[in-house]
Amino acid sequence: MKRGNMLIAQSGGPSMVINQSLVGAVLAAMESPAVGRIYGARHGIKGILDGTFIDLRRESAATFEAVARTPSAALGSVRRKPSPADCAAIFQRLHSLDVRYFFYIGGNDSAETVHIINEEARQAACDLACIHIPKTIDNDLRENDHTPGFGSAAKFVACAFLGDDLDNRALGGVKINIVMGRNAGFLTAASALARTCPDDGPHLIYLPERAFRLDRLVADVQKVVRRLGRCVVAVSEGVADREGTPIAAKFIKETDAHGNKQLSGSGALGDMLAGVIRDRAGISRVRADTFGYLQRSFPGVVSETDADEACRVGVAAVLAAVRGRVSSGSIAIRRKPGRNYAVYFEVVPLRSVARETRHMPPAYISRAGNDVTQAFLDYARPIVGPLPRVGRFRQMMT
Amino acid sequence: MKRGNMLIAQSGGPSMVINQSLVGAVLAAMESPAVGRIYGARHGIKGILDGTFIDLRRESAATFEAVARTPSAALGSVRRKPSPADCAAIFQRLHSLDVRYFFYIGGNDSAETVHIINEEARQAACDLACIHIPKTIDNDLRENDHTPGFGSAAKFVACAFLGDDLDNRALGGVKINIVMGRNAGFLTAASALARTCPDDGPHLIYLPERAFRLDRLVADVQKVVRRLGRCVVAVSEGVADREGTPIAAKFIKETDAHGNKQLSGSGALGDMLAGVIRDRAGISRVRADTFGYLQRSFPGVVSETDADEACRVGVAAVLAAVRGRVSSGSIAIRRKPGRNYAVYFEVVPLRSVARETRHMPPAYISRAGNDVTQAFLDYARPIVGPLPRVGRFRQMMT
Repeated sequence: MKRGNMLIAQSGGPSMVINQSLVGAVLAAMESPAVGRIYGARHGIKGILDGTFIDLRRESAATFEAVARTPSAALGSVRRKPSPADCAAIFQRLHSLDVRYFFYIGGNDSAETVHIINEEARQAACDLACIHIPKTIDNDLRENDHTPGFGSAAKFVACAFLGDDLDNRALGGVKINIVMGRNAGFLTAASALARTCPDDGPHLIYLPERAFRLDRLVADVQKVVRRLGRCVVAVSEGVADREGTPIAAKFIKETDAHGNKQLSGSGALGDMLAGVIRDRAGISRVRADTFGYLQRSFPGVVSETDADEACRVGVAAVLAAVRGRVSSGSIAIRRKPGRNYAVYFEVVPLRSVARETRHMPPAYISRAGNDVTQAFLDYARPIVGPLPRVGRFRQMMT
Repeated sequence: MKRGNMLIAQSGGPSMVINQSLVGAVLAAMESPAVGRIYGARHGIKGILDGTFIDLRRESAATFEAVARTPSAALGSVRRKPSPADCAAIFQRLHSLDVRYFFYIGGNDSAETVHIINEEARQAACDLACIHIPKTIDNDLRENDHTPGFGSAAKFVACAFLGDDLDNRALGGVKINIVMGRNAGFLTAASALARTCPDDGPHLIYLPERAFRLDRLVADVQKVVRRLGRCVVAVSEGVADREGTPIAAKFIKETDAHGNKQLSGSGALGDMLAGVIRDRAGISRVRADTFGYLQRSFPGVVSETDADEACRVGVAAVLAAVRGRVSSGSIAIRRKPGRNYAVYFEVVPLRSVARETRHMPPAYISRAGNDVTQAFLDYARPIVGPLPRVGRFRQMMT
C-alpha cells in the first residue's frame, strides 16, 4: 500500500447527491492508513491551479453529515478543460503537495479531464492514482447502468409532472414542460413515472434520440386534445432536427470550454413551441415552463436509492485506489441481473467513459417516437423510488 | 337553522392546499343536520351552468384524506366571470337543486363572482347563503393577514432559492429567477427566507410595488458581483415600469375573462432581463429560470401551517353558514397579536375582498426598494414553516 496525500474535487453541473460522493470518499479515506492529508480543491481543477484548498480533516463529523444531504457542489465546481500547460501546472502542484490519490467527481467531460491528467502522469512517470467518480443528472455516462444524480433529478421531474398534470386537469389547455438532459432523453423520459391512471400526463414525450418535427408535434397535440380536451407534453431541452442540430441552439448561442452548447437557463425553446401550437393548432390556452436548474438543486427532493449509491460510489473509488487494485479508472454502476434491484461497482478505463455520451436505447422509446416503453419504466422506477401519493374523487375519473 | 342542499366549487389558479379547504368544508357539512345533499360542481360556475356535478357524500373517508393532501383543484377549476345571464341561469340551477348553501373557493376574482351571485340572490329574494372561501398563492386578498395557498407556494420559492443559491455558489455568474404573484410581491419576497448566512442569495429582490428600472437592475447586479463574484436575483413576474405597465406584458398579450394579463407560463421576461445584464454589464454567465406552475402544484412541498389553516377556513365557512350567523361573506384569516403565532377567522363582507388586490405594505420593503425588511421575514416565517437544513464546510465560508 502506497502512502500519500489525497486531493478531491468536484466538476461540471452540480446535482442533488454529488456531495454524497464527496463525503463517502472522504470518510472512507479517513479510515485508511494509506492516506495522509486530504485536500479539497475549490472549484475543481481551477482550485488546483490557483492553489486554493481546504483541509478536509479539519471539518467535523456533523458537518460531513449535513453536507452529504445538501444539494450542489460543496467544494465549488468548474467547467474547464485543462490545456497541456494546465496539466503541467497541476502535476507540479500535486507533486509539491505529495498527493498520490486524485479523485475527480463529475460527468463525461470531467472523466476526460481525469483521463488527460492521467496520461500526463504516466508520461511523467508520476505515481498518481487518478480516479473519476461518476456524476450526472443527464444519465449519459457510458459503461454505467445509471449515474449518481439521475435518480434524484428524475424524481424531481416526475413529481413536477405529477403536480402539473393535476393543474392542467383543473384548468385545461396545453402545457409544455422543457426538461434537462442535454443530448440524452433519460431525464425527460422520467416524466412518464408520474402516470398512474390511463388519462394521466405527460401524454406526449419528445426525446433527443428521435428527430424532432414541429408539424408532428402539432398533429400529436391536436390528437390528444381531441381525445382528452387537454394535453401535457414533455420535451427534452436537447431535441434536435433531422440533421442533429438542437432546436434550442437556434435561439441560444453560448458554448462552454468543452464545446457544449448552452441549452438551459433560458425559456426560449418552450416559448417557441407554445407559440407554434397556439398559432397552428388554434388552441388558445397554451403554456410552457422550463424546469431549469431546480431539477438539479431543489433541496429535499432526493431519491434515497440515488443518495445511497452516490455515497457508496465515493467509498468504492477510495477503496479501489488505496488497496492498489488500480492506478486509474472510473467507477461504474452496474445492475445485478434478477428481479430484485441491486447494484455493484466496477472500475472501468477512463477513456471508456470520457467525452462520448450514452443515449436512450431504442427499447426504451415507443415505436411512434413520442413516448417511452414499459421497459424504460421498469428500468427507472427502482432508481427513482416512490413518488408522493395523490388522491382523486372516484366520480371525477369519468 | 334552515335546511337545504349545499353546493361547493373551486375557481381560479389551483394551489397546494385548495383541496384542504374543500375537504374541510365538506366534512364539516357532513356533520351538520342542516345540510342535505352535497354537490361538487365541476370546473366552478361552469359546472353549475352545465349541470355537471358529483355527489360528494358518495366519496369515501380515505378518498377525502388523500384528496386533501393532493395539489390542484380536485373538482376542476375555471376562469370565468359570470354575465347577468349566467347569474340567472345559476339561480335557476341552484333553485331546482334546492341548494341553500353555496361555497366558492378562490381568490379576489372568485370573491367577485360570489358577490355578483349574492347580489342577484338578494334581488330575487332567494334564500341562498353565499360564502367565499379564500385561496391564492399571491397572498393579495384584502382583509386577510395571509391567504391559504401562500404559505406552501412561499415554501416552494424559498426552497428553490435555497438550492439555486448553492448552485450559483458552485459555478458563479448571475442567476435570475422569475417568481409568480401577479401584482403583489409577497411570493417573490418569500425568496428571502432562503438566507441563513450573510452572503446567501437572493442578493436582490424586485417587487411589483416599486417601479422597475433596467438601468437600476444592471447597476445593482454589478455592485453585488464586484462584492461576491456572483449574484442571485429574485424578480416578480409582475414588476412594472413607472407608469404601472408590467414589463412582462410587453412580451405576452393574453388576458383572461377578468381582464388579468397573462404573466406566467412564459420565459420571456427572464430571458429579456438576462440578455440585458449580459450585454450591459458585460457578464458572460447569466442564466434565467421562470419557476412557473411548479410553484402552485409541486407535490410534497407543503407548509403544515398552510395546510392546517386551509382546512380550518373551510370548516369555518360551513359553520358560519349553517349556524345562520351570516347569509353571505368571505372568511378572512386574522393574526392574533402577541409573540406566538396564532390565527382566528372572521366573516367579512364579500365586496371588501372582491376584485381589488392587496399589496406589500411599505414596511416590508427595504428603503432602496431591492430587498425586504426584517418585518417581512418575521411576518412570513411562521406561515411558511421550517425549510430543509443544508450544510457547508466551515472553511468554504471565507
